[in-house]
Amino acid sequence: MREGGFDVTSDETTALFAQLVEEGVLTEADSVFWELLTPQRARRLVEVLKRRTRYITVVLEAVDDGHNQAAVLRSADAFGVQEVSIVEGRASFSPSEGVSKGAHKWLTIRKHPDIHAAVRFLREQGYRIWASRLDDNAVPLEAVDLSQPAAFLFGNEHAGLSEEALALADGSFIVPMVGFVQSLNISVAAAITLYTVTRRAREVAGDRYPLTTEEQRAVLQTWLRTATPKTRRVAQELARKATEW
Amino acid sequence: MREGGFDVTSDETTALFAQLVEEGVLTEADSVFWELLTPQRARRLVEVLKRRTRYITVVLEAVDDGHNQAAVLRSADAFGVQEVSIVEGRASFSPSEGVSKGAHKWLTIRKHPDIHAAVRFLREQGYRIWASRLDDNAVPLEAVDLSQPAAFLFGNEHAGLSEEALALADGSFIVPMVGFVQSLNISVAAAITLYTVTRRAREVAGDRYPLTTEEQRAVLQTWLRTATPKTRRVAQELARKATEW
Repeated sequence: MREGGFDVTSDETTALFAQLVEEGVLTEADSVFWELLTPQRARRLVEVLKRRTRYITVVLEAVDDGHNQAAVLRSADAFGVQEVSIVEGRASFSPSEGVSKGAHKWLTIRKHPDIHAAVRFLREQGYRIWASRLDDNAVPLEAVDLSQPAAFLFGNEHAGLSEEALALADGSFIVPMVGFVQSLNISVAAAITLYTVTRRAREVAGDRYPLTTEEQRAVLQTWLRTATPKTRRVAQELARKATEW
Repeated sequence: MREGGFDVTSDETTALFAQLVEEGVLTEADSVFWELLTPQRARRLVEVLKRRTRYITVVLEAVDDGHNQAAVLRSADAFGVQEVSIVEGRASFSPSEGVSKGAHKWLTIRKHPDIHAAVRFLREQGYRIWASRLDDNAVPLEAVDLSQPAAFLFGNEHAGLSEEALALADGSFIVPMVGFVQSLNISVAAAITLYTVTRRAREVAGDRYPLTTEEQRAVLQTWLRTATPKTRRVAQELARKATEW
C-alpha cells in the first residue's frame, strides 16, 4: 500500500483526529486505536474514506471462480465502491487472496441467501437494479441513468444471470463492444462498469455520492479495528473485557 | 459469435461484395472465398471491419501469463483495436485459448525482438508512446492526448515495464484509483484503457480513426482466408497450386 507521497507529522494526525470527532465520524473513545496508527496510515485511511461511496454498488450472483470474485473486490476497492453483495452459487464465496491483494479487508461484504433477498434489500435502500446482459434491448453502459443510486448485477461465468435476477432488475445494460467476441470476462466487465459509472455518478450525484457521516463512522470504526495487527489485538482485548464485565 | 439480430439474404451479400470491390477493399478474385461464407457471416465480417482501428494500439512487454495475454487480445478485439505488439519476456507468447475465445484469429499480432524495435516500429508509424505506470507524474487516463495515434504499453505482472520501456516512452499514464490497493491486474488495466481511449479517440480522430482502404483490404483478405474451415481449405489449395505452377 502506498502511503501518499508526502510527510505527515503526528501533530497533523492529532489535528485530523480532532476534526473527525468534530464531524461526528469518530468519538473520543476511538483514540485508543487511532493512536496506534502511523501518521501516514491514519491519513491514508481518511483519504480513502472520503472517496468511498454507497451510491454505486455491485452484486455477484453465482460468480463461482475465486479469481473472478477477488478481481471484482479489487476493482470495487480501487474505484471506491464500499459495498458488495454476494449471492453464492455452486461454489462458496472465497476470493483468492493473491488476486484481491487484501481488498476484502476494506469492503463491506453482504451475503444474501438468494437473489430475491438481495434485490429486496437493495430496493429498500433506494437502489435501481441494473442487470448485466448481452441483449439487444440493453442500455449501453454510458447511457445508464445514474440520477438514483444504482446496483449492478453480474452473473455466473457460464450461464450469466438467472431468470429470476433478470426478471427482478429494473433494466439491463451492456458494455458496448464492436468485435467478433461478444462477451467480456466477468472481472473485466465489472471493472469497466465500476470505473465508468463511479466517474459519472460522482458528477451526477453531487452531495449524495460520498458516505454520510454515520456511514463514514461505521466504516472507519471497522477499519480502525482491523487496520494493523496491533489494532486487531487491542480490539480483541477490548471485546474480551467487555464480555468479562 | 453472434451474427447480428436480423436476416440477411444472399442478394444483399452479393450487393455487399460489389460495394467492397468498388471501394477497393476486395477484388473480384476474392469472390472464391466470399461465396463460401453464409450471408450472416459475410455481413458480420464487414460490420466488424468498419469499426476496426489502428489509431489506438497496445504493446505487451514481458506479460508472461497466458491468461493475461489472452484477456488483452479479447479486449483488443472487443473494442476494435486491430493491432497488438508483443515483446516476449521469460515466457513465450501463448495466450490461453479458453480465455481469448478465438480473438487472436481476428487480430494482427506483431512480435518484436525487443522493446527498442517495438518502439522504433511504432514511432515510424506515427504513434505517441504511453507507458502504463504507477507514478505521481503519470497523466490520468482521461487526460491522455489523443490528437495523434497512441500506443499503450503494459509491462510484466510483477515488475511492470522495464527501465528501457519507460525511458523510450513519450509519457506515462495511469488508470485513476481511489482505494487502498494501488494497482490493477494487467488484464483489467488494459481493458479499461482500451475501452476508454477507443471511445474518446473515435470522437477526436474523425476520419483518421477507421482503417484506410488498403488496411481494410489487408485485414479482410486475411479474415476471408481464415474465417471458416472451408475458406481455410480453399486458401491452402490455392497456395499449393500456386507452388505447383
